[in-house]
Amino acid sequence: MAGHRDIVERFITSLERRDWAAWAGLLHPDVVYEIPQTRERIRGRDRYLQFNQEYPGDWHLRPKLVIADEGHGVVWFEWRLDGDVDDAMAFFEFTDGLITRVTDFWPERYVPPPGREDLVERW
Amino acid sequence: MAGHRDIVERFITSLERRDWAAWAGLLHPDVVYEIPQTRERIRGRDRYLQFNQEYPGDWHLRPKLVIADEGHGVVWFEWRLDGDVDDAMAFFEFTDGLITRVTDFWPERYVPPPGREDLVERW
Repeated sequence: MAGHRDIVERFITSLERRDWAAWAGLLHPDVVYEIPQTRERIRGRDRYLQFNQEYPGDWHLRPKLVIADEGHGVVWFEWRLDGDVDDAMAFFEFTDGLITRVTDFWPERYVPPPGREDLVERW
Repeated sequence: MAGHRDIVERFITSLERRDWAAWAGLLHPDVVYEIPQTRERIRGRDRYLQFNQEYPGDWHLRPKLVIADEGHGVVWFEWRLDGDVDDAMAFFEFTDGLITRVTDFWPERYVPPPGREDLVERW
């Protein structure tokens, strides 16, 4: 759905610009933000805004892929912080053109288990 | 896109059933599978099939959310292995109704950094 795709793209690009008014304007006042890897949840636009404004470091975000339909969206994005570059992803729910739920994931690099070297190449 | 959504759902459900014929039937012969966290890449349906058939452990998969459009799809799914339960996600590209690229992510739990306890609740 074009409208939801646009919201997801603006979510990332307004964060990157630190355009807090534009970013908060995409969110429902009762938005719920969850980080399943830490079992953390933030309730409400105001606290979620404060969380992002206070997040330390000179972080940067670049969207790589957006997919959206009538009820949900996802962005796969690249983040950069202190020389690190990695992938992350955020899932969205929408109600009446506002984001009502954000769930994001921050996968970390790991050493592959042995035994599959004959099938894979590395980059 | 309904067709792509259906392919993504069948990707997970046929893996869970170990229905290798159904699963491989969704893949283009030249499919590329990538795991960015380990910088591993597998080229071709046959090697990707072998990789999954040989993957150790009594693993189980359950789709939680599927989003798809004309060119891409994603599934956010739960995996279980040896008592562990966690979330993972796979992104897909399609050509002519077959999967041409799969990129998956396996985020791990981590301890949240200090300083944001006043904004978050834990679950």
